[in-house]
Amino acid sequence: MKIITFLSDFGTKNSYVSQMKAVASGITNARLIDITHEITPHDIREGAYALRCAAPYFPTGTVHVAIVDPGVGTERRGILITTSKQILIGPDNGLLMPTAHFLGNFIIYEISNEKYMLDSISSTFHGRDIFTPVAAHITNGIPFDEIGNKTYEYVDFDFGKGELRENTVIGNVIHIDRFGNIITNLNKDIILNAMDFNKNIKVFIGSKCLEIPFVKSYGYVKNKSTLATIGSCNFFEIGINQGNAAKKLSIKEEDKIEIHFG
Amino acid sequence: MKIITFLSDFGTKNSYVSQMKAVASGITNARLIDITHEITPHDIREGAYALRCAAPYFPTGTVHVAIVDPGVGTERRGILITTSKQILIGPDNGLLMPTAHFLGNFIIYEISNEKYMLDSISSTFHGRDIFTPVAAHITNGIPFDEIGNKTYEYVDFDFGKGELRENTVIGNVIHIDRFGNIITNLNKDIILNAMDFNKNIKVFIGSKCLEIPFVKSYGYVKNKSTLATIGSCNFFEIGINQGNAAKKLSIKEEDKIEIHFG
Amino acid sequence: MKIITFLSDFGTKNSYVSQMKAVASGITNARLIDITHEITPHDIREGAYALRCAAPYFPTGTVHVAIVDPGVGTERRGILITTSKQILIGPDNGLLMPTAHFLGNFIIYEISNEKYMLDSISSTFHGRDIFTPVAAHITNGIPFDEIGNKTYEYVDFDFGKGELRENTVIGNVIHIDRFGNIITNLNKDIILNAMDFNKNIKVFIGSKCLEIPFVKSYGYVKNKSTLATIGSCNFFEIGINQGNAAKKLSIKEEDKIEIHFG
Repeated sequence: MKIITFLSDFGTKNSYVSQMKAVASGITNARLIDITHEITPHDIREGAYALRCAAPYFPTGTVHVAIVDPGVGTERRGILITTSKQILIGPDNGLLMPTAHFLGNFIIYEISNEKYMLDSISSTFHGRDIFTPVAAHITNGIPFDEIGNKTYEYVDFDFGKGELRENTVIGNVIHIDRFGNIITNLNKDIILNAMDFNKNIKVFIGSKCLEIPFVKSYGYVKNKSTLATIGSCNFFEIGINQGNAAKKLSIKEEDKIEIHFG
Repeated sequence: MKIITFLSDFGTKNSYVSQMKAVASGITNARLIDITHEITPHDIREGAYALRCAAPYFPTGTVHVAIVDPGVGTERRGILITTSKQILIGPDNGLLMPTAHFLGNFIIYEISNEKYMLDSISSTFHGRDIFTPVAAHITNGIPFDEIGNKTYEYVDFDFGKGELRENTVIGNVIHIDRFGNIITNLNKDIILNAMDFNKNIKVFIGSKCLEIPFVKSYGYVKNKSTLATIGSCNFFEIGINQGNAAKKLSIKEEDKIEIHFG
Repeated sequence: MKIITFLSDFGTKNSYVSQMKAVASGITNARLIDITHEITPHDIREGAYALRCAAPYFPTGTVHVAIVDPGVGTERRGILITTSKQILIGPDNGLLMPTAHFLGNFIIYEISNEKYMLDSISSTFHGRDIFTPVAAHITNGIPFDEIGNKTYEYVDFDFGKGELRENTVIGNVIHIDRFGNIITNLNKDIILNAMDFNKNIKVFIGSKCLEIPFVKSYGYVKNKSTLATIGSCNFFEIGINQGNAAKKLSIKEEDKIEIHFG
């Protein structure tokens, strides 16, 4: 099955998302799936995190159109990224890069061939006028190099992978979710290689030092207790059951985290 | 046409719903339809009501995946329910039961065969890792007993049906909607057997006794007037035109209602 | 590809939208696309604007079901409008008319044939019980006059087109968006015939007279600066970069606007 996904900061009160689906439906019969349209306006990091979480669950060949694009209408370029499994389309501002790094073997094309864009290009809505029609044509089998030339310059961005040393894992905070849970760039594999569930770990984060249990899910600790777990995006996270960990611990994105185990 | 629906308390700001659709799309070409993802977190009753309202309009064979699941990661079981018309999949916490009772002839299977789940099961997101892949395989024709064994123990829940006695109908409040309309478990059939539109009825509800008109829709009474009608889910409801009936009358879910007519 | 779109003021917290998709899915395999369901309740003008913006991007043959319907359950009629390209279905209250005028060559049918409605018609939800099944049957090729008779009386409504005189363009405000941007009925063609980007224009609007730049997008002026541009729906609009123009200038819908150029 051919699939195009859409991720943006457009909200759902206006008709913008439907205009992208309208354009896609005029070109391709691919299935259209929303990832989310409620990214905080202009928050490239939050959009990058949502795409990075969702993309791995989609079938090989899925084309993701992602638009968090404060630079629309300026000189910033539009890019198409092929990876070992899926295709990413959007602005060249870092939004697509954590997913590109994760999926691996990526090649970047600068979108330039007007043949695959709408006839009339607005200055403010490249999602509808450029990215969506390109995505739709790609699902119809257009070769990637028809879209534009390969490029080796791009705005890079990544959450990093963290590091395992003897009895310590070192990483940083990549996302605070709406419940105040603190999500790090330490993935399930690095963590489960290092430590076991149901043991206590020592965590240095921000200016705090915590000794907390590492458990399978929030339900394993009492209300208002702090815990560490693997979240549903397969990242190590710290939370408070029924509470706001980021606020209580004064943690923000990009803060360092160091875990001592064993 | 094969259809899978999704109902949850996940919200639409994160990418969770898209992850379920991603998993489904990798297994089946069934159409994917959202019922709602804005159930109040952990409010099983509200989720049960939404599913009960929507399900009857779906074609025979539709598979509903419903997740309001405060017990995820604990010992609560996952179940698949076949009924005379549709299939229900979700946690064994009562969420599915009013719809199962309404659709009738239900048989419950405990979901246990890991062959139809994702390879890696998180502790916090059974919607994506278990319920959705099971639903998708079901639309591909997997026999129900491949999913797990029949079970005769389950967490039951129902809104009940109300009762007709001589010139009285007795029931209770099952839902207060966001406008403050008071929705009861008295369905259209029991009501229209008992009384006619455009007549006054006497209603005992909470600590109040009202004499109000029973009308076809809100527009039949003046602004701020109290009325009784049949709502769009075919339940008897009490409302105030352009006002909040539950607040004004101090009514809450599970309150008793008694209607005298004729 | 057959397409049905849905636009309403139902919100997405309840299950109403899914009930319409359920009914459609029982009749047709047309693709179902949401335009938006977050129109301010009963705001026909806002719904008309959203439909007018989105419809032109949909393929020929698309059937739009639009429901902002304060008169549901009263004597207001349901109508189907054929145009040169697409079909519009909804209440006869003006909601569909700006789109009908824009698409052109419209013919209006009064929806009356109960054969193409649900068996049981609620008084409050014609979107599900009448408009959606009619739309679904239309995508299956039912002739338009099977739905009901042509009618030449209807509730008209339009945003108008503005007027070009010598060195002046005259129009009015049709929509204030959620950011406070002031959108007028002056379309791209009338404007670009009259003036060039990157020049200053003089605008009389409400009680104000502004001399502001006409630019390709918001990014061309400094933060908090006022500008004029062509918005993504191809209408001339006035905004403040990162600010609320309607509030600052005390402008409301239907206010006159006069632009002096050259």
